[in-house]
Amino acid sequence: MSNILVVGSVALDSVKTPFGERKEVLGGSATFFSVAASHFAPVALVAVVGEDFPKKHIELLKNKKIDLAGLEVAKGETFRWSGEYSFDFNNRTTIFTHLNVFADFKPKVPQSYQNKDILFLANIDPQLQLDVLRQVNKPKLIACDTMNLWIEVKPKILKDLLKHVDIFFLNEPEARQLTGKSNLVKAAEDILKMGPSRVIIKKGEHGALMFSRNSVFCVPAFLLETVVDPTGAGDTFAGGMIGYLAKCGKVNETNLRRAIVYGSVMATFAVEAFSLGKLAKVTKADINARLTQFERFTCF
Amino acid sequence: MSNILVVGSVALDSVKTPFGERKEVLGGSATFFSVAASHFAPVALVAVVGEDFPKKHIELLKNKKIDLAGLEVAKGETFRWSGEYSFDFNNRTTIFTHLNVFADFKPKVPQSYQNKDILFLANIDPQLQLDVLRQVNKPKLIACDTMNLWIEVKPKILKDLLKHVDIFFLNEPEARQLTGKSNLVKAAEDILKMGPSRVIIKKGEHGALMFSRNSVFCVPAFLLETVVDPTGAGDTFAGGMIGYLAKCGKVNETNLRRAIVYGSVMATFAVEAFSLGKLAKVTKADINARLTQFERFTCF
Repeated sequence: MSNILVVGSVALDSVKTPFGERKEVLGGSATFFSVAASHFAPVALVAVVGEDFPKKHIELLKNKKIDLAGLEVAKGETFRWSGEYSFDFNNRTTIFTHLNVFADFKPKVPQSYQNKDILFLANIDPQLQLDVLRQVNKPKLIACDTMNLWIEVKPKILKDLLKHVDIFFLNEPEARQLTGKSNLVKAAEDILKMGPSRVIIKKGEHGALMFSRNSVFCVPAFLLETVVDPTGAGDTFAGGMIGYLAKCGKVNETNLRRAIVYGSVMATFAVEAFSLGKLAKVTKADINARLTQFERFTCF
Repeated sequence: MSNILVVGSVALDSVKTPFGERKEVLGGSATFFSVAASHFAPVALVAVVGEDFPKKHIELLKNKKIDLAGLEVAKGETFRWSGEYSFDFNNRTTIFTHLNVFADFKPKVPQSYQNKDILFLANIDPQLQLDVLRQVNKPKLIACDTMNLWIEVKPKILKDLLKHVDIFFLNEPEARQLTGKSNLVKAAEDILKMGPSRVIIKKGEHGALMFSRNSVFCVPAFLLETVVDPTGAGDTFAGGMIGYLAKCGKVNETNLRRAIVYGSVMATFAVEAFSLGKLAKVTKADINARLTQFERFTCF
């Protein structure tokens, strides 16, 4: 089994969806990622919170055996994000983003984290992602996520970063934005030329695609009767996927495909409740039951 | 092996896509359906064309061994449709619809067609679909397609029809429109209550879903590097699916799932060229090769 280092955001989210509203609940890319991954392998986290960050959230992460030596508590307030989803979840509007302590965040990788097998750079400024890379001994596997903002404002730095990345996660519109290609096969070919040996294009409720130079894998999303809050679904997907890969120890096509399926399964738990309401309570039996359902839904 | 009766449109299409433009090429729901289905089982067609309908198109259908005893040649001009696709194929604008001989079409099922095993009612006015049902001895399997227009203007007649239908095809927005439910699981549950034992929700480039009262099947679409013209993809999908089912003879979950995969495979040939440019030339070997690719793309 390999171990994982994740760098990203830990936040307090205020979310409004057709199913209700929650204020100041636990969120952040590194949070969803690490809780999902913790079901499969040891996870160490680098992030920053403010002095106002509730102790109960720290307890939740500790209970998941997530190593918090790299969780910095800085003077000031925790990063806050607020968003609202349309009735069919197809549109998300950001109400506010208060960076707070995140504005001056300079990730510091503790000495004890420097020889991790897998590094996951959750969605933060690509300059910070590069800074983290420079602080660690070369991991066996480097994966990263990004967002439309960085493709728009820091494309050059993002492309510098991609030269070092093995697995790159982005969503469908981001893949088109980064390459200027509307066809996803062509977009993926372009991205593979930027460095990664694998590109994973997330399509939300329509599933995911994984491309390498000589293979393509398409998987539908698990069909859910109730989606309560999609916040964190992409990070949870990455957490389940990288977590399972870490558990396998070895990265090959078979393990990567299974890993994507595990990622899809974990993402279903993220969206069935606000915040980590369900994800944090999931058991091995829940994961296995849903995996079996997933296999039943897709086999032919 | 079962045989198939299809009732629908045979048309002359004028289409503009990012890859070019074609005027007055062979189109129509029954055309795409029957050519796709003809690879698997005998097909008999009921439709109408005008006196201007090119002989070469008749020859093409005859070469596919499609029974044309039910193809009426009426006084006047053939049904014409013209549409344009946006650069990413996500939007289609209808430029014109000239019903011509189709305006007064009353499908007449020839005596020789009255004992077909499978009836496919391609997308036409649900009143005409009902009229056809009354003209045949009860087939073992009745499948039908529809469109947003009929859901809007003839919902009652469509629902009357659905009481007699076993397999109902519609696309994602139509499923939401028909039921008022944005969640597809809930929409499918509502549609199953209207009569069909199977609902197939087509999601275009995102694949398809099949629901029954106690099962769900999700399949991604085959990933293509080049999409030239999506016109007819849905009808070709249905043709491949129903054709394969006819070949199996028996309708069960396993055959239905394989049938959907064959439908997806056939649809790829429809979209790779204008009109039936590729679909009409496809060989058994082409189909099998793409099926193998499809299995490789999706297995985990």
